[in-house]
Amino acid sequence: MRKNVLIVGAGGVGHVVAHKCAMNNDILGDICIASLTQQKCDAIIESILRKNHVKDSSKKLYSREVDALNIPALVQLIQETKSEIVINVGQSYINMSVLEACIQTGAVYMDTAIHEEPDKVCENPPWYANYEWKRKERCAENGITAILGIGFDPGVVNAWCALAQKEYFDTIDTIDILDVNAGSHGKYFATNFDPEINFREFKKVWTWVDRKWVLQKVHSIRVDYDFPVVGSCPVYLTGHDELHSLSKNIDANSIRFWMGFGDHYLNVFSVLTNIGLTSEVPIKIAEGVEIAPIKVLKALLPDPASLAPGYTGKTCIGNFIRGTKDNKPRQIFIYNTCDHAECYQEVESQAISYTAGVPAVAAAILVARGDWDAKKMVNVEELDPTPFIKLLDTMGLPTEVLEAPATFEAPVIKSLETV
Amino acid sequence: MRKNVLIVGAGGVGHVVAHKCAMNNDILGDICIASLTQQKCDAIIESILRKNHVKDSSKKLYSREVDALNIPALVQLIQETKSEIVINVGQSYINMSVLEACIQTGAVYMDTAIHEEPDKVCENPPWYANYEWKRKERCAENGITAILGIGFDPGVVNAWCALAQKEYFDTIDTIDILDVNAGSHGKYFATNFDPEINFREFKKVWTWVDRKWVLQKVHSIRVDYDFPVVGSCPVYLTGHDELHSLSKNIDANSIRFWMGFGDHYLNVFSVLTNIGLTSEVPIKIAEGVEIAPIKVLKALLPDPASLAPGYTGKTCIGNFIRGTKDNKPRQIFIYNTCDHAECYQEVESQAISYTAGVPAVAAAILVARGDWDAKKMVNVEELDPTPFIKLLDTMGLPTEVLEAPATFEAPVIKSLETV
Repeated sequence: MRKNVLIVGAGGVGHVVAHKCAMNNDILGDICIASLTQQKCDAIIESILRKNHVKDSSKKLYSREVDALNIPALVQLIQETKSEIVINVGQSYINMSVLEACIQTGAVYMDTAIHEEPDKVCENPPWYANYEWKRKERCAENGITAILGIGFDPGVVNAWCALAQKEYFDTIDTIDILDVNAGSHGKYFATNFDPEINFREFKKVWTWVDRKWVLQKVHSIRVDYDFPVVGSCPVYLTGHDELHSLSKNIDANSIRFWMGFGDHYLNVFSVLTNIGLTSEVPIKIAEGVEIAPIKVLKALLPDPASLAPGYTGKTCIGNFIRGTKDNKPRQIFIYNTCDHAECYQEVESQAISYTAGVPAVAAAILVARGDWDAKKMVNVEELDPTPFIKLLDTMGLPTEVLEAPATFEAPVIKSLETV
Repeated sequence: MRKNVLIVGAGGVGHVVAHKCAMNNDILGDICIASLTQQKCDAIIESILRKNHVKDSSKKLYSREVDALNIPALVQLIQETKSEIVINVGQSYINMSVLEACIQTGAVYMDTAIHEEPDKVCENPPWYANYEWKRKERCAENGITAILGIGFDPGVVNAWCALAQKEYFDTIDTIDILDVNAGSHGKYFATNFDPEINFREFKKVWTWVDRKWVLQKVHSIRVDYDFPVVGSCPVYLTGHDELHSLSKNIDANSIRFWMGFGDHYLNVFSVLTNIGLTSEVPIKIAEGVEIAPIKVLKALLPDPASLAPGYTGKTCIGNFIRGTKDNKPRQIFIYNTCDHAECYQEVESQAISYTAGVPAVAAAILVARGDWDAKKMVNVEELDPTPFIKLLDTMGLPTEVLEAPATFEAPVIKSLETV
């Protein structure tokens, strides 16, 4: 049994994580939300109280200020708060310092996105090997449970791959992870999470094709797929975290990630990128000021948190998997749909943050109960998917499985470069 | 006889003005180029020497550093350089200080664009009445010749209006000034002059329709016109300097300005504007820095001067004028076409700067000769157009007149607001 949760990060995902932790604090114990800006934590606590989401009022719910790049400060915070589980939902730059603090204190570590260095984008595969996996041995030696990428994608989609292998297939040929947001925020243009991190995803496309890494240009390969519930949507081959671990842990020929973009989004993104406004490299302005254009763009775009109240429509994220079972070909689409307005009604958040935050809390519950307390560093597909998927069914993210769905037809993907 | 020219401003137009002054320095005398950045002036002088453009080598060609918002410094510079003609081709923010220095020293004043205050865009009509015309009386009292807007548009197009009235029409119904750049700079996106000033033009559209000012939205009214030489191009109703004086000085029912934009330009401009990147209002970046987004955009866009070497194609600027002569309907298109590559070959500049700069030098020659030394403040249409148009014919900007050209069909323009 593990108890008391420290949530590091008070953005959109932290907001959802805190709500769901409070709703399960009979199992999880005290909840502390920590961020560089304590008032963002306090705003989340206000939302939780407004929604009456504290299940066990004998447990504490409180906030702290912390610089998550400062390891000694994190160690002290984990110890002072007696947190045995740390859920890191801050910017991707802080993963290694939070992990280090967990290793030093014996706390369980979880995050929802791969580690990034500010000056490096879309690193060579497998990306986890550059940072996280270098700490595998130390985690094992110290009996540290570290669960990497336990959001939705990465996270739930990884568990679905494990579930497919365990229950649905004897052999897997292709896995296509499809992520589409068919909702509308009603703004001219906005990103659903930090634009700085969001746009970093769209610089290079690394994909696992025929058991090799292939490199492709961003937004260059499009497929239209008829999704359940949300209907036909265009998706584009995109690089994404989970491919970097699934390629190693799941026995499949090809594993690809596809993200949905509308024509308007792509047009705006293309203009901004061609002009140089999505760049993280500082430029000099006539007045002598040096600034990264992406920081200016971020200041002009709507705060992702501000989108939630008016968001309508649904997200659909699913794995189209093709292989064999009992020597017969089989294909399934295993998926979840999530409604923006329902998420807002429940936890005052939109579905993008909701789908990323809820799985981390489900995992925390499984760790607290002992089911997932692995005592080593794992990616999600290395854990038993059954209790996780079952728990998510009751927490707002039910899994649906379509047998013999419409075929997802990926074109032949040639590489611009191989690794 | 007036002599010795001070050119204030060392941008693209200043470059052309300096070349053409040097080519006519037997009439104009010494030429001094002054700017906040003296090395920009020196680069222009190098270009003039490279092209062997100094006609009379007994005359001086030199540079000076000056802050054109500092009136005493300007007065001293005019006196020290013994300049009797000042051609102001700096940013539009400096018009009033340069004019003041001319009034104080007795020098002739010329500019090529209306005065702007940094914090005010697209001011209420007639715009000249807010700044320039308030100095009319002082100019008259002191016998100061001040020629406003003596570039191409405003400038030559104003002279064409005067010429139409003098030679082609008894009554004028409509004047449509059409400005199209059918050239290509080969870049993803660029402005042909300072983007800060360029984009300020596209905030509001004030137009003179049926002898009233009407307000319209930018890029909302499009007409396709079959231009001579460059062929069919789309043009959009746009607000522009010359309407603010022509509406007062030319007896016509409607005077409208139309600028050519391609779909790609409009798309990029629309994205940038909708995101807020063309705004001159400072915003606060997360890091605490305050900056006007347009300054960041300007730093990212190609320097307009850098476009000249690779520019191909032509500009076409003309007045489509409809009225009566000898009680019969008449319509003419009076125009000029200018070739980017030919401009570069002659003066190492593109056609946008060339068409703006050459007319100011023609005017300086007319003033030096005494033809246009009005001893008061005038807009170009108040001067005799004949010697000016004749002189431009020999200086690289010949005027062509089409009798009974294809009709320019403007739609009915309703006002969003009237003045």
